[in-house]
Amino acid sequence: MTEYPSILLENAVNSFAKLPGIGSKTALRLVLHLLKGDDQETENFANSLLKLKKEICYCKKCHNISDTEICSICANPKRDATTLCVVENIRDVMSIESTGQYHGFYHVLGGVISPMDGIGPSDLQIASLVERIEPENIQEVIFALPATMEGDTTNFYIFRQIAKFNIKITMLARGVAVGNELEYTDEVTLGRSILNRVEFKN
Amino acid sequence: MTEYPSILLENAVNSFAKLPGIGSKTALRLVLHLLKGDDQETENFANSLLKLKKEICYCKKCHNISDTEICSICANPKRDATTLCVVENIRDVMSIESTGQYHGFYHVLGGVISPMDGIGPSDLQIASLVERIEPENIQEVIFALPATMEGDTTNFYIFRQIAKFNIKITMLARGVAVGNELEYTDEVTLGRSILNRVEFKN
Repeated sequence: MTEYPSILLENAVNSFAKLPGIGSKTALRLVLHLLKGDDQETENFANSLLKLKKEICYCKKCHNISDTEICSICANPKRDATTLCVVENIRDVMSIESTGQYHGFYHVLGGVISPMDGIGPSDLQIASLVERIEPENIQEVIFALPATMEGDTTNFYIFRQIAKFNIKITMLARGVAVGNELEYTDEVTLGRSILNRVEFKN
Repeated sequence: MTEYPSILLENAVNSFAKLPGIGSKTALRLVLHLLKGDDQETENFANSLLKLKKEICYCKKCHNISDTEICSICANPKRDATTLCVVENIRDVMSIESTGQYHGFYHVLGGVISPMDGIGPSDLQIASLVERIEPENIQEVIFALPATMEGDTTNFYIFRQIAKFNIKITMLARGVAVGNELEYTDEVTLGRSILNRVEFKN
């Protein structure tokens, strides 16, 4: 156990060290960096966190993080209101947005079904998803959940809830990553990409 | 450039991303972690930083970080008051303290002489070091600065300032690290460890 020369320092280091992936050595380095910098910077840092925590909203429609009641994506009249992309969290929204290939709406579940972590369907925004389909006249639901066991379980669970609606239900293509050599692609992915091969277009 | 769904989120991410070694992806992960956690934790985090910045002192004797005017090491009557260990920063104090092998006092320079970075002798606590020698009746000064060009330059500069006093001036031994194989030790270090070989004691 390291002994810190100051309780104030120790508290600040411990705060940083609680964050994921930051150990006590890195935490100390970060705190000393802030100490060396000017007061205003640290104040801005602390205030941005306090403000975030107090004032952040979640969009009432898609549950994405937002500064307003309805997020900028849901409020955009130019987007395709009939397509809904189901994602795990807001980072996935940002990833998909950065591709520039999707122009519909989102629905952020806030996680995936994971009995190991004690996360069941009622902990996620699944009921609110099902309730959106008819009133919003959704024509297609795209599953963009992680390609893991938990993601697949969640896909299947939601599928059973929304199969009764007369809509198209799709999921992200799984296959060889663009730029990857075949020999370095794992066999499950490669096998799937053969089964789901698509017509060659010039 | 990633687009964030919220200005508040963006500000918090940018604050984290200003820290050394933290990119915008890691910053986003950390902010979302805080958002998921409870409010109290984030509040404590922010307050510990504000409090640190406002209330931290530097020890008037050794310039170590401290909660009080004189740090706990300088105020400890059990320590050897005649020995002074010169270090670059407070992390070095903590490292040496953790060895349990040193029982004297410290003097924290706050850096090393580095013309490339615009750091000269007057930017460091060198004058205050020289002023301590006689009044405190120091018998030995130990240089524990980094084993780099800048560290050596600083050693030499300080040496010239304090050579006039009738005291012992020593520096940390440099040689093969404990646990290291000889073949993986760089040749400069290995050469130095041969020149400075010590008598074998059983």
